[in-house]
Amino acid sequence: MDSIMHKIKHRVFEIIQTAADDDKASKIFDIFIITLIMLNVVLVIADTFTLPYYIKYISRRLEVFSIIIFTIEYILRLWTSDMLYPQYGKFVSRVRYIFSFMALIDLFAILPFYAPLLIPIDLRALRILRMIRLLRIFKVSRYTNALSVVTSVLKNKSNQLISSVFVVALLMLISSVIMYNIENPAQPDVFINAFSGLWWAIATFTTVGYGDIYPITACGKVLSSVIALLGIGLVAVPTGIISAGFMEQIEQEKEEHTENKEKHFCPYCGERLD
Amino acid sequence: MDSIMHKIKHRVFEIIQTAADDDKASKIFDIFIITLIMLNVVLVIADTFTLPYYIKYISRRLEVFSIIIFTIEYILRLWTSDMLYPQYGKFVSRVRYIFSFMALIDLFAILPFYAPLLIPIDLRALRILRMIRLLRIFKVSRYTNALSVVTSVLKNKSNQLISSVFVVALLMLISSVIMYNIENPAQPDVFINAFSGLWWAIATFTTVGYGDIYPITACGKVLSSVIALLGIGLVAVPTGIISAGFMEQIEQEKEEHTENKEKHFCPYCGERLD
Amino acid sequence: MDSIMHKIKHRVFEIIQTAADDDKASKIFDIFIITLIMLNVVLVIADTFTLPYYIKYISRRLEVFSIIIFTIEYILRLWTSDMLYPQYGKFVSRVRYIFSFMALIDLFAILPFYAPLLIPIDLRALRILRMIRLLRIFKVSRYTNALSVVTSVLKNKSNQLISSVFVVALLMLISSVIMYNIENPAQPDVFINAFSGLWWAIATFTTVGYGDIYPITACGKVLSSVIALLGIGLVAVPTGIISAGFMEQIEQEKEEHTENKEKHFCPYCGERLD
Amino acid sequence: MDSIMHKIKHRVFEIIQTAADDDKASKIFDIFIITLIMLNVVLVIADTFTLPYYIKYISRRLEVFSIIIFTIEYILRLWTSDMLYPQYGKFVSRVRYIFSFMALIDLFAILPFYAPLLIPIDLRALRILRMIRLLRIFKVSRYTNALSVVTSVLKNKSNQLISSVFVVALLMLISSVIMYNIENPAQPDVFINAFSGLWWAIATFTTVGYGDIYPITACGKVLSSVIALLGIGLVAVPTGIISAGFMEQIEQEKEEHTENKEKHFCPYCGERLD
Repeated sequence: MDSIMHKIKHRVFEIIQTAADDDKASKIFDIFIITLIMLNVVLVIADTFTLPYYIKYISRRLEVFSIIIFTIEYILRLWTSDMLYPQYGKFVSRVRYIFSFMALIDLFAILPFYAPLLIPIDLRALRILRMIRLLRIFKVSRYTNALSVVTSVLKNKSNQLISSVFVVALLMLISSVIMYNIENPAQPDVFINAFSGLWWAIATFTTVGYGDIYPITACGKVLSSVIALLGIGLVAVPTGIISAGFMEQIEQEKEEHTENKEKHFCPYCGERLD
Repeated sequence: MDSIMHKIKHRVFEIIQTAADDDKASKIFDIFIITLIMLNVVLVIADTFTLPYYIKYISRRLEVFSIIIFTIEYILRLWTSDMLYPQYGKFVSRVRYIFSFMALIDLFAILPFYAPLLIPIDLRALRILRMIRLLRIFKVSRYTNALSVVTSVLKNKSNQLISSVFVVALLMLISSVIMYNIENPAQPDVFINAFSGLWWAIATFTTVGYGDIYPITACGKVLSSVIALLGIGLVAVPTGIISAGFMEQIEQEKEEHTENKEKHFCPYCGERLD
Repeated sequence: MDSIMHKIKHRVFEIIQTAADDDKASKIFDIFIITLIMLNVVLVIADTFTLPYYIKYISRRLEVFSIIIFTIEYILRLWTSDMLYPQYGKFVSRVRYIFSFMALIDLFAILPFYAPLLIPIDLRALRILRMIRLLRIFKVSRYTNALSVVTSVLKNKSNQLISSVFVVALLMLISSVIMYNIENPAQPDVFINAFSGLWWAIATFTTVGYGDIYPITACGKVLSSVIALLGIGLVAVPTGIISAGFMEQIEQEKEEHTENKEKHFCPYCGERLD
Repeated sequence: MDSIMHKIKHRVFEIIQTAADDDKASKIFDIFIITLIMLNVVLVIADTFTLPYYIKYISRRLEVFSIIIFTIEYILRLWTSDMLYPQYGKFVSRVRYIFSFMALIDLFAILPFYAPLLIPIDLRALRILRMIRLLRIFKVSRYTNALSVVTSVLKNKSNQLISSVFVVALLMLISSVIMYNIENPAQPDVFINAFSGLWWAIATFTTVGYGDIYPITACGKVLSSVIALLGIGLVAVPTGIISAGFMEQIEQEKEEHTENKEKHFCPYCGERLD
C-alpha cells in the first residue's frame, strides 16, 4: 500500500517537475500550465479595458477555473517537495520549498482569490504576480542555460557594475539638487523641489527625454549638456564591463574544453608532463 | 538542337546569377536590375506626394516597364532554377525555388500589378515589397561576406539574445499593467488601458521618450525611473553578448588560419615538437 | 608622556582611516560618519521642499550637530596626517593632506557654516558639496577595488576616448552653427543664436531629444538625421574602446596569475622546457 | 645664394610642419595658428548673436588679420610642399598638395574672404569651414596616434559596418513608407508624405524621439514599438563590431610586441626553430 502510494507520488513529482525528453505526460502538463498562465496574463490585461458584460462573465469563470488548477498544482508541488530536497526531512524540505522564490510567486498568484474569504481587503493588485509565473517558460532547458550564462556574467561583474551605478547615482543626486537651485527661480512650477530635479536627471541620464521637464536658463542648459554627455558613459561603462564578462565566460568554457586535449608529453622520454 | 538550347539556358543562368568577376554581361544585367529596383523605390516614395498629372503619368509608365522586366526576370530565374539545385529533379528544384525567400519577395513584388486582373482587391500595398528587392544589392560579394559574419554571430548567440529579450518583454508587460493601475486615476485620458501602459513601457525602455505619454504621479515617476535605468541594461546586455560573439568569430578564424602554421618541427632532428 | 600621546594619536589614526577587519571601533566610526553624511544629503534635499516650521528647526539642529562632528573629524584627520605620509615631515605632510581631493571636499563641506562668521556672503550653495562626501562609502574595499578597475581602464584608454570626444565636440560645434544658419530664418524664436544650435546638437547627439528644439525645414531635418545617426557612433566608439579596455585588463590579470604556473620543467630529466 | 634660399625654405618647412620636440619656433608657430583658429571659431559663433557695433568692428578687424595670416601660411605650405613629397617633381608635388584634404580645407577657409573681389556671390557660409581647421589640433602626436587607432579599427570593420547600416537604412525606408500609409489617414497634417515617415523612422530608430511626430493609431504604435526595439539592435550590432575591432587591434599589437620574445629554440641542439 505504502509502496503504491510512493510510486504515485514519484510519478506526480516527475510530471510536475521539468519534463524529461521522453515523458509525454509531463510535457502535456507543462504546456497546459503555461497556456493557462498566458490566458491569465491576457485576462489581467483585458481587465483594464471596458468590456461588455458577457465577456467579463466568461473572464471571471476562466479565472476561477485557473485558480482551482493553480491551487491543485501548488498543493501537489508542496506534497512532493520532499523529493526535491531528498537530503532534508519531510518538514524541513516543505518549509524550504514554501519560501523558495518560485513557490512564493505561485502562492501570491492564487492568494488574492482566497483573501476576501479571510480578510476584508482588496488584494486584486496581487493578480499582477500571475504574470511573473510566465517565468515558468524558462523550464525549456535551452533557454535556461542561455539565461544562466547571462545571469552568471552579471553576477561575476556585479561589484564593478554596482560601483559604476553608485557613482552614477551620486552624480544624479548632486546634479538634481544643483539643477533645482539653478532652474527653480526661472520655472518654479516645473522644478518644484529636488525630486523634480531627480526626475529630470534620470530622464536626461538615460537619454529618455520625455520633454515634460528641461532647463531653460543658460546655466541649466550647460549642466544638462554635461549630464547628457556623461549619460553616454552611463551606457558605455556597463556595456564594456558586461562585454568583457561575456568574453571571459567564453574563454573559460574554451579552456575547460581544451584542458583535456592539452596534456603535454615530453617527446624524448615519453612521460606525461604537468 | 537540345545542346544549343542547353548552352543558351546555361548562359542565361550565368547572367542572372551573381556575376563572375570577368562576366561583363552578367554585371551589366545586375546593375540594370538594381537600378530598376532603386527607381521603383523612388516611385513608391514619390507616390506619397501630391504630384502634377504628367509626372504621375510618367511614373505609371515606368512602373509598367519595370513590372514587365521583373516578370521576365522571374520567369528566367524559374526556368533556370534546375541549374541552381542540380542535385534535384526539374520539378522539385522549381518548387524549391518558388518557395525560397528571395523568390517569394520577387513574386510579391510583381503580383500586385496582375492582381486586379484576377481578383477585385486593391493590392497596391504589396508594392512596398519591391523595396525589399533592394536586398539584391548584397550580391556584391564583399558585403555579402560581411553581412554573413553579422548574421552568423547573431545566430550563434540567438539563445542568449532571445532569453534576454524574453525577460525584458516580461518586465515590460508587468510594468505596463502596474503603470496603468498607478496612472489611470490621475490621467484617465492618457493611460486608457494596459496598451497605453505598454506603449509607455516601450517608449521608456528603448529611451525613445516621445513625450506623448509619461507618468505625473510620484509613484509613477519612481516606477518610470526604475524602468528607464533598466532600459540601459536592455542595451548593455545584448551589446555585450554580440561583442563577445564577434570576438569569438575573430578568434575562430584566426585559429583555423594558424592551425596549419602551428605544427612545429625541429628542422635539425626532424622530430615534431608539439 | 610623549609615548602615550603617540599611542593615542596612532589609535585615532587607525580609527579614522579605513577599518581593518577586526577593528570594531574603526568600523563603528565609519558607519557613524557615513550615516551622518547620508542624513545631511537628506537635509539638503529636504531643504528644497516647503516644510513646517518645527521640521526646519530640527533640521537646523541636526545640521549644526553634523558640522561639529565633521569639524572634529577634519581636525583629527589633519592632526594625524603625518602618519598618512610617513616619508615627509610634519609640515609637508599636513600641506599635502590639506590639498588632497578628499580633504578639500571635507573642508568645503564644513566651510559654508563658518563663512558667515568671517565674510558676509551666503555660501549655502556649497552645502551641496556635502553630498560628494558620500564617496567615503567607497572605503568598503570590495567596491573600491572594483571601482579602481573601472577608473584604471578609463585612464588607460583616455587618449583614445579624448580623441573621439574631441572629434565629436568639433562635429557638434560645426553642426550647431550650420543648423543655426538653416533654421534661424524659419523659426527665429527657437534658433536664436549658435548656442541654441549647440543645445539642439547635444540633445540630438546624445539622443535625449527633449522636444523643445528641433528643425522644421527639410534641410534641417536632413542634417538632424545625419547627426542623430552619427550619435549612434558616439555611443558605439567609446563603448568599443572601453570594452576592449576591460578585456585587456582581464587578460593582463590572467597573465600575471599564470606567469608563475607556466614555467614548465620536464620532471624526468630536469631540463626546463620553454 | 641658392643654398641659403634652400636653407631658409627648409627652416620654414620645419616650422610649419609638425613640431619636433626640441624645435621651439615650430611649437610657437603651432600654438599661434591654433589660437588663431580658435579665435575664428569664437568669431563665427559670436556672429550669430546680436552684438553692439564696436564689437562687430573689432570682430571684423580680427577676421581680416586672421585671413592675412592664414593666407601667408597657405602660401608657405604651398611653397614648401615639394619637401613634403620629395619623391615627386616640383609641379606634381604642389598639385598633390593643393588637392590633399587639409589643404582644401585651408583654401576654403580663406576663399570666402577673397570671393567678393572676384564674383558677386555671398560665400560667407564657407566661413564655417574655418572650424574644420580645428583638426590641426591633432598635430599633437599623442592624440594623433590614439585617433589613428580609432580610424584604423573603423576602416578594418567598414565592410561589416556598411552592411549593417545598409540593412538598417532599408528597414527605415520600408517602415517609413508603411508608417505613412498607416498614419496619413489619422493625422494627415503630421504624416504628410514618405519624408515625414522617414523623419519619424530616424527619430525612433536612433531613440532621439523629439515628440513632434509619433503614431496615434493602434497599428502605428505596434510598428513604432517594433522599430524602437530594433533600434536597440542598431546600437548593439555596430558596438559589437567595433568592440571586437578594438580587441583585435590590441591583440595584434601584443603579438607584434611578443614576436621578438617568442623565438623558439630547440633546447637539445640549441638551434633556433621557426
